[in-house]
Amino acid sequence: MRHTHNEQAPPIPLTSRDNPRIKQLRRLAQAGGVDRRAGLMWVEGDHLCAALLARAGVPVALVSTPAGLAWVETWRRQNGLDPAVPVWTVTPALMRHISALESPAPIACLARVPAQPTWQGDAPAVVLDRLQDPGNVGSILRSASAFGVRQIVALRGTVALWSSKVLRAGMGAHFHLHILEGCEPGDLHALRVPLLATSSHHGQWLHEADLPWPCAWLFGHEGQGVQAALQAQAALTVRIAQPGGEESLNVAAAAAICLHASVEAR
Amino acid sequence: MRHTHNEQAPPIPLTSRDNPRIKQLRRLAQAGGVDRRAGLMWVEGDHLCAALLARAGVPVALVSTPAGLAWVETWRRQNGLDPAVPVWTVTPALMRHISALESPAPIACLARVPAQPTWQGDAPAVVLDRLQDPGNVGSILRSASAFGVRQIVALRGTVALWSSKVLRAGMGAHFHLHILEGCEPGDLHALRVPLLATSSHHGQWLHEADLPWPCAWLFGHEGQGVQAALQAQAALTVRIAQPGGEESLNVAAAAAICLHASVEAR
Repeated sequence: MRHTHNEQAPPIPLTSRDNPRIKQLRRLAQAGGVDRRAGLMWVEGDHLCAALLARAGVPVALVSTPAGLAWVETWRRQNGLDPAVPVWTVTPALMRHISALESPAPIACLARVPAQPTWQGDAPAVVLDRLQDPGNVGSILRSASAFGVRQIVALRGTVALWSSKVLRAGMGAHFHLHILEGCEPGDLHALRVPLLATSSHHGQWLHEADLPWPCAWLFGHEGQGVQAALQAQAALTVRIAQPGGEESLNVAAAAAICLHASVEAR
Repeated sequence: MRHTHNEQAPPIPLTSRDNPRIKQLRRLAQAGGVDRRAGLMWVEGDHLCAALLARAGVPVALVSTPAGLAWVETWRRQNGLDPAVPVWTVTPALMRHISALESPAPIACLARVPAQPTWQGDAPAVVLDRLQDPGNVGSILRSASAFGVRQIVALRGTVALWSSKVLRAGMGAHFHLHILEGCEPGDLHALRVPLLATSSHHGQWLHEADLPWPCAWLFGHEGQGVQAALQAQAALTVRIAQPGGEESLNVAAAAAICLHASVEAR
């Protein structure tokens, strides 16, 4: 009765906070939305759920309020949905209990964190060096996806890429990308393309630089920039001319400009 | 005794939540940090306070924990500080009571919202059409400042530019800019430079476009883009080639790319 693939009877929503599934979901959602040890993540909202279903395959479960079931049925009809995927129907109050959002979505997925992909040594990449702000990281993933750089390498100390905040800021870009997390600077030897570092105060001017392609762009910590050990490995360091007289670009803004310049240099 | 310009005696911090000043500060900080009617804003953290003091003149008051007084004294010694500016010293617990941040800063300012500047019809501008996300708006202000576009026009429906979240994301850029808020689309006739709209799905390719300078860039709502009435006023609509095959750029990333392209076109 609780699964919408029984089309005959409307499902009876779960209401109890003591249900072990609900407890698990709430723990996960409230702890940033990703549990690396269990390999599980909480993906909330129709846009992200659609991106996950379209690209990342079969979730552990769909979680829906009664209002969200229409979306699930439309998706099932238009795109198909593995009948083995359970749909857990919950009351809106229970969704509010689970979700960490102020305005919870009517639909969410419990899903497995995608397996770490293998390194693609000859492919372009974006390397994130200890970036802290989920909005910045999500924006950079969107820019990388827009400009066709699919390999993302997050060094240890970077915010968790599959966390809810980064997923939301990424607007589905995650599911188009090959994401390697928890990497060490030494791992970058697997990349056989030139490393390009960005700096706010030294290096060649981006608009004058002869950019190699493919390449791997290094983007650094919001306050500290790219760490010295990585700067030293870079084939080229570039900086963006800022005629306004301030060193004031946000790292995700700088990344967008660099990735766009790379596209033009192809 | 409570003012640090009495250098002889260390100030006795305020402790009472019932102090009318403290009530006012808390109300302001908890309500997003700006009170348009009273013309007051809450500016928190040493970086923003320094930008305000350096550029925007005399705050109503400095608010400091005992730990923040060293910063105030250093600022006073190195940059001067109008002796008429009171320093209200508060206990760390009281600062936590006032502040809306999880980790309140030791130093903040109560300041007047800068007066709306006059339109500069011939100067370049950035027009914000109902942008909602404080991080995006702050990032765009930083990019505008970096690339020397000082006139910012926020149309009604855009997030409050002097609110705490936008101030934080702006990292001090606000104090280098001429910010006009609460404008209507009809007001844009005051701009005598060409309006350039951005679109995700039509217009000239940015990398092929002949960009006029000076110009006014229009950046639109995160979901809806630039409204049709403004698109119609634009001398040129441009879009950014996204060979990754997704329309996935964040608006602040797109703005950075457009403003950077404008600099190259000068």
